[in-house]
Amino acid sequence: MVNEYKVRWILANEFQLIDDCFKPLSAGLSQDEIGIGDDGAVLDVPVGKQLVVVTDTLVKGVHFPGDAKAYDIAWKAVAVNLSDLAAMGAIPAFFSLALTLPDNDSDWLKEFSAGLKAIAEQYDIKLIGGDTTKGPLTITVTAQGWVDKQQAVLRSTAQPGDLVCVSNTIGDAAVGLKIALNTMSAEVLQALSAEQQSLLLKALHCPQPQVFIADLIKDYASSAIDISDGLLADLNHIIEQSSVKSAMPLQAVIEVADIPLSDALKNYVKASDDWSPVLYGGDDYQLCFTAQKDDFAEMDSVAELLGVKLTVIGEVGLAAESQQSKIQLKLNAKPFQVDKVGGYLHFS
Amino acid sequence: MVNEYKVRWILANEFQLIDDCFKPLSAGLSQDEIGIGDDGAVLDVPVGKQLVVVTDTLVKGVHFPGDAKAYDIAWKAVAVNLSDLAAMGAIPAFFSLALTLPDNDSDWLKEFSAGLKAIAEQYDIKLIGGDTTKGPLTITVTAQGWVDKQQAVLRSTAQPGDLVCVSNTIGDAAVGLKIALNTMSAEVLQALSAEQQSLLLKALHCPQPQVFIADLIKDYASSAIDISDGLLADLNHIIEQSSVKSAMPLQAVIEVADIPLSDALKNYVKASDDWSPVLYGGDDYQLCFTAQKDDFAEMDSVAELLGVKLTVIGEVGLAAESQQSKIQLKLNAKPFQVDKVGGYLHFS
Repeated sequence: MVNEYKVRWILANEFQLIDDCFKPLSAGLSQDEIGIGDDGAVLDVPVGKQLVVVTDTLVKGVHFPGDAKAYDIAWKAVAVNLSDLAAMGAIPAFFSLALTLPDNDSDWLKEFSAGLKAIAEQYDIKLIGGDTTKGPLTITVTAQGWVDKQQAVLRSTAQPGDLVCVSNTIGDAAVGLKIALNTMSAEVLQALSAEQQSLLLKALHCPQPQVFIADLIKDYASSAIDISDGLLADLNHIIEQSSVKSAMPLQAVIEVADIPLSDALKNYVKASDDWSPVLYGGDDYQLCFTAQKDDFAEMDSVAELLGVKLTVIGEVGLAAESQQSKIQLKLNAKPFQVDKVGGYLHFS
Repeated sequence: MVNEYKVRWILANEFQLIDDCFKPLSAGLSQDEIGIGDDGAVLDVPVGKQLVVVTDTLVKGVHFPGDAKAYDIAWKAVAVNLSDLAAMGAIPAFFSLALTLPDNDSDWLKEFSAGLKAIAEQYDIKLIGGDTTKGPLTITVTAQGWVDKQQAVLRSTAQPGDLVCVSNTIGDAAVGLKIALNTMSAEVLQALSAEQQSLLLKALHCPQPQVFIADLIKDYASSAIDISDGLLADLNHIIEQSSVKSAMPLQAVIEVADIPLSDALKNYVKASDDWSPVLYGGDDYQLCFTAQKDDFAEMDSVAELLGVKLTVIGEVGLAAESQQSKIQLKLNAKPFQVDKVGGYLHFS
């Protein structure tokens, strides 16, 4: 759409820009599919599947700092969506991009499209279209995936007795953010090697969505969510929504010492005695899921073949009626008190 | 996703806000479909159909003025997407909303969700999810629809001898914009009754996407586009893309006097002798399409039953090799010269 409010430079250049930067990312659609260049994209629907749709927006100064690299912004804008698809057990197929840009900086666009290309190739997804507008830097990606009919994994289907599990390691991005924002004491920072700092920053800027275990989640998990708001906040969604659906007062008992940490995070926690990036940190884009005890060993062995570490961190049970918090934390089997249970919802 | 850049108020209120305002718009999904409230939406796929995906962004101060009503912004954000679907002959089914808001104004949100509700009910589409973030007011809607396999109508399939047609009337929104921006001379404004001014403003703020003739477009049109950038600019896309695909130098010859105008636009053109809102105006969200001569009468009679007026405004032919412009304009059969052929691309 265009009217007199729309600044024309971007329109005048939009078609060329799309051709140069984005159209190559549309390659590989089947013969009767349509990608970029028409009013919309036309896509084939696999037999026996349901469509899964996710959408996430990144705003400059809110979700990434003003000096973030265009490559990283593009990567993350797609990654956070693939993470949502993986949490549902869906295999990603396509994405569209709504890009609002303050100016027509071709170097920035080239770097941005390189980031898009990298993640699109890594996870074999096609860019099917989008919209380029002028305004404050904002990126909305909508991604589509497919899941076997009625096999999508929900947040609301955990059962008493299920194990609570996570993929890989937790808290890296949150400590990476402390490094990026320079809010870590020199003493704690010293506990991290240069290589570790670099890995933590990478976890923050270029998260790896757990696409490769989406099928495993679909086959084995009883419920799942991706960890974007923080481990406890997201686990809380599982417990609350499953309590409502099962009409049982569920709780999760978590052993904090079992939460898998990278070497960098082990050093951080040892030096700072601060568990908050692990429990409330956000931006992990790992999966938190529940699974029946009998299923976990087989699931874990397949994940290992895929290069993904799964760890049991607790168990779902029935909560006492008087119990306020739905998540009971223990550290080395003793009750662990924190003043921020519930994650970001209690930060304000 | 959340990190320390994210302002927390919106997260703290997001779930309540979504429940209150947006969740009712998700009602009516089938039993094994999932709407708002999980990582993504899960949707049934009709047999024999292809998926059509469109996306459009509206930015405050670019696509609508700062004082635009929240109801109108919501309506238009969805309408422009439904218009793209209709141009492809697709029937809309779902939409997701990425809403970036500067503050947590519940009155604004209520008005906005009323606009969403109105258009969702009018065209029988479900809100399936989205993302709410803090930042400068920006709305991205992604809409999904279905079309019979390999029946999507493209821009690139016009043929020599096809008629060039449009739906309803052209130029109303562009003159509405002149009224909204107060850029019309008092003399010309006087030529428009109060009721006509109100209709033109409505065409600008609450455009009616041509959803109801999408099936007709699919069955009869040889190519189609929705008029968002201006009649000539959009028709030019059809001619250029069809020239490339057919490997023939196509042109369109348009009789300007045949372009259907509302009574308000007739008064405007008579008083101002200014055809530019009709030819380059943009924001019409009518359909411009081509059809074989033998098909038009039947198509037109069905459209009439649906309350939509179709008008032939010209014909596709072969261009002379020396010919620069792909669109030849005539007014009452005489060559009509304008200095803005190509629409907004030439305004800058």
